[in-house]
Amino acid sequence: MKLILAVVQDKDSNRLVDALSKGDFKTTKLSSSGGFLKEGNTTLMIGCDDEYVDQALELIRDNCSHRDQMVAPISPMGGNADSYIPKPVKVEVGGATCFVLPVEGFFQF
Amino acid sequence: MKLILAVVQDKDSNRLVDALSKGDFKTTKLSSSGGFLKEGNTTLMIGCDDEYVDQALELIRDNCSHRDQMVAPISPMGGNADSYIPKPVKVEVGGATCFVLPVEGFFQF
Amino acid sequence: MKLILAVVQDKDSNRLVDALSKGDFKTTKLSSSGGFLKEGNTTLMIGCDDEYVDQALELIRDNCSHRDQMVAPISPMGGNADSYIPKPVKVEVGGATCFVLPVEGFFQF
Ligand code: NI
Ligand code: NI
Ligand code: NI
Repeated sequence: MKLILAVVQDKDSNRLVDALSKGDFKTTKLSSSGGFLKEGNTTLMIGCDDEYVDQALELIRDNCSHRDQMVAPISPMGGNADSYIPKPVKVEVGGATCFVLPVEGFFQF
Repeated sequence: MKLILAVVQDKDSNRLVDALSKGDFKTTKLSSSGGFLKEGNTTLMIGCDDEYVDQALELIRDNCSHRDQMVAPISPMGGNADSYIPKPVKVEVGGATCFVLPVEGFFQF
Repeated sequence: MKLILAVVQDKDSNRLVDALSKGDFKTTKLSSSGGFLKEGNTTLMIGCDDEYVDQALELIRDNCSHRDQMVAPISPMGGNADSYIPKPVKVEVGGATCFVLPVEGFFQF
């Protein structure tokens, strides 16, 4: 058995938890912040048998890979909003950092 | 040495932390949610020497095992509360999911 | 590769995260409480290659070691504040509890 600790962005976490749940993976969310990923993030604990680790990682990759997104920038404070035409900028979102840990014992009560 | 990660229900967590503390186990609570257990839950990190793992697991089992509880259901919204006699229903509460992880180094500063 | 789980006091955590960041360590903060350390605490996950574990532990020791601090005690409730001259008392602050866990796989998406 393995325990996967996956640090993902908040915005990707619900979609990932749903996908993992459909794949019969049980997860627990830990509130986390900063560090591996710049924006608000969530750490998921996913316990699974050795033969399902690849499948879990694939679901994480499919739902959380970093990708570019076009976003409308915030108008500058105090600027003239009428004359300001915001130009969408490309930002990178998503991304996942995953640690696969060995598990010596697993118990449910 | 081992690190036990125990996901337990919020309602059981204080009693468990007390029991672990009386048994000389040191614990740290991580706020967590969803997944392994349906209701609000807490993840405890319990570090202990190999020979105490069984004792820690026994305390978790004694304080967090899932069990049935009779609860009065909430009156339906907009219903006539006077004519409605809530019948207690059986719900399953508690439960614990525990991972025992190997520890290669332990340091206190 | 290793995953270091370090439980440190809230007041030390920002300084530690900065120091780790300067040392090119990536960290994720988990909100945690109680247990290993009495005051509010934070659990940091630090992933690093085996040869950098000692350096990460040294940064934790340098920024979080427990030490004595002189603090002005709170005036007793209902006491005569005018006649009461608070005498600084020595309290122990800081401290860190670190678990070094083996990592079998590491993935970034
Ligand atoms: Ni990229
Ligand atoms: Ni049952
Ligand atoms: Ni001391």
